[in-house]
Amino acid sequence: MPNASIGVDVGGTKIAAGLVNAQGQIVCRGQRPTPAGSPTDILRGIADAVNEVIQTSGLKREQVEAIGLGIPGLVDPATGIGIVSVNLHWHDVPVKRVLEEMLGKPCFIDNDVKVAALGEFRHGQGQGLSSMVYLSIGTGIAAHLILDGKLYRGPNGMAGEIGHAVIDRHGPRCNCGAQGCLEALASGPAIAARATAKINAGRASSLVRMATAQQEPITAEQVFAAAANGDPLALETTEETGSYLADAIQILIMMLDPQLVVLGGGVARSGDLLLSPIRRSLERQAAQSYVFRQAFAPERVQLTRLGGDAAILGAASLVTAGF
Amino acid sequence: MPNASIGVDVGGTKIAAGLVNAQGQIVCRGQRPTPAGSPTDILRGIADAVNEVIQTSGLKREQVEAIGLGIPGLVDPATGIGIVSVNLHWHDVPVKRVLEEMLGKPCFIDNDVKVAALGEFRHGQGQGLSSMVYLSIGTGIAAHLILDGKLYRGPNGMAGEIGHAVIDRHGPRCNCGAQGCLEALASGPAIAARATAKINAGRASSLVRMATAQQEPITAEQVFAAAANGDPLALETTEETGSYLADAIQILIMMLDPQLVVLGGGVARSGDLLLSPIRRSLERQAAQSYVFRQAFAPERVQLTRLGGDAAILGAASLVTAGF
Repeated sequence: MPNASIGVDVGGTKIAAGLVNAQGQIVCRGQRPTPAGSPTDILRGIADAVNEVIQTSGLKREQVEAIGLGIPGLVDPATGIGIVSVNLHWHDVPVKRVLEEMLGKPCFIDNDVKVAALGEFRHGQGQGLSSMVYLSIGTGIAAHLILDGKLYRGPNGMAGEIGHAVIDRHGPRCNCGAQGCLEALASGPAIAARATAKINAGRASSLVRMATAQQEPITAEQVFAAAANGDPLALETTEETGSYLADAIQILIMMLDPQLVVLGGGVARSGDLLLSPIRRSLERQAAQSYVFRQAFAPERVQLTRLGGDAAILGAASLVTAGF
Repeated sequence: MPNASIGVDVGGTKIAAGLVNAQGQIVCRGQRPTPAGSPTDILRGIADAVNEVIQTSGLKREQVEAIGLGIPGLVDPATGIGIVSVNLHWHDVPVKRVLEEMLGKPCFIDNDVKVAALGEFRHGQGQGLSSMVYLSIGTGIAAHLILDGKLYRGPNGMAGEIGHAVIDRHGPRCNCGAQGCLEALASGPAIAARATAKINAGRASSLVRMATAQQEPITAEQVFAAAANGDPLALETTEETGSYLADAIQILIMMLDPQLVVLGGGVARSGDLLLSPIRRSLERQAAQSYVFRQAFAPERVQLTRLGGDAAILGAASLVTAGF
């Protein structure tokens, strides 16, 4: 098997590695918990996961071309340094250098969500396209812009920070200090906060019982689950969420003309409960505006197809082409 | 003089041509009114302007490498066809083919504002940078995105249509049918309309006398002139305009992380009267948000430095490098 490479998705709780063949298929997997220790412990855990995959696959070591890694937080792909990660509790870790010593193979790193965007572009929804926006919606919100076949990072590496684009200048206060950032309107915590505010205003909802029973704040996941069961307060909240995300996507489409916007991240696991309100809102906007109509079609907004495998596939493909 | 090329800015009222040397300087100029006739008349006018420049320069014909043209409206640079132009009253005109026959030189065409953006990037405010947004504010509003040194057009050629990004979903109705598009808030006609609405609401302003005297609707230019004289209604209007443009620029910066946003187009001729309210609004936003603060500095928003020469210089440089 020529050109096999290994992709690793390094998360705060687990390390998932996969051997990827030249056809972009994961043919062998390995997984282990992320060591709760020093950066060296974590890097050793990564090396162990990689070695496990090689052994399981039955491949000779020399058949593995290289290793690609998706690392959370701020990463410098050029130097191979993990600059800072809250989840891994590290800063300025020479990931590439140390792992190349441990594994005796060329290693390449990039941010985990950028790597997932790359995987989705090369092997998922984006296959065969030239321009795609990967909108990651979770605790935070970020867009990863693949333009003319390449990830656009921006001169300061800050491109795609759409989470802090102000979408509604009269909206709620964001953690960053501004008012009405997309993240303050449509991230997981923002969805939960909006539903909670409605409950606190005295409105009835199946979520009230849940919040009381679990003695913990409700989550965005629970809001979507209640919406799936027809809870009016939850449905109103998911419609609003869709509408805010649609406003941001409308601007993205008018500015960048991507062939596709892919929704990923934790909130996108709610699937059609997230996608449908977004499409409905965009369709209303397209019905109004003849300019937007030229640029938009409902099928140009899709959910991630690869889910958790996107990062492994994207990481493995760091090896085969400059990104 | 090696590598001299001729850039032509084809407008609805005049054709301006310039011989540009290898250092990016306009060393000889020619200008004539745009013929009010058939597409062939206009193309002949362009050829005449080019021939005039060659003759005036004293250059031998073979010393001119090629001709680049900035054409209003929708243009296909690959085929060299002017697809549609309201100002030139034409559609599907084989500009490149006909001019190459007339002039015996390779000709290259692109949209006039894209060409101005290119000129500003290569020879004006953008010199030495890698990523720049050229925001053209006139009757319409469009952004031209130069990312990693290249013009990003989008797969359907619709990138940069920020004029129809919805900035205030409660804003006025746009010509496109949507509510609150940037163009409906901050284009020349929108600025005039906003000032007129204030006057019609019975408010005092030096513009009232002007509107009565000229028996014509007031213009954005007049609003800026009144603002320069301290007229409160006009100042309020230009502050609002700056604030809307700042909202769009805030989103542009968070999404694309450009090193520079350059303001061009007719409204930008109002200079600091336009720039200062934009910067004030962005500085307020940066003071609030620690994320935006990392991406923004006042000097990252500038007025065009080349003005009308940007299109000639940009057109001439179509010749020397793929764009």
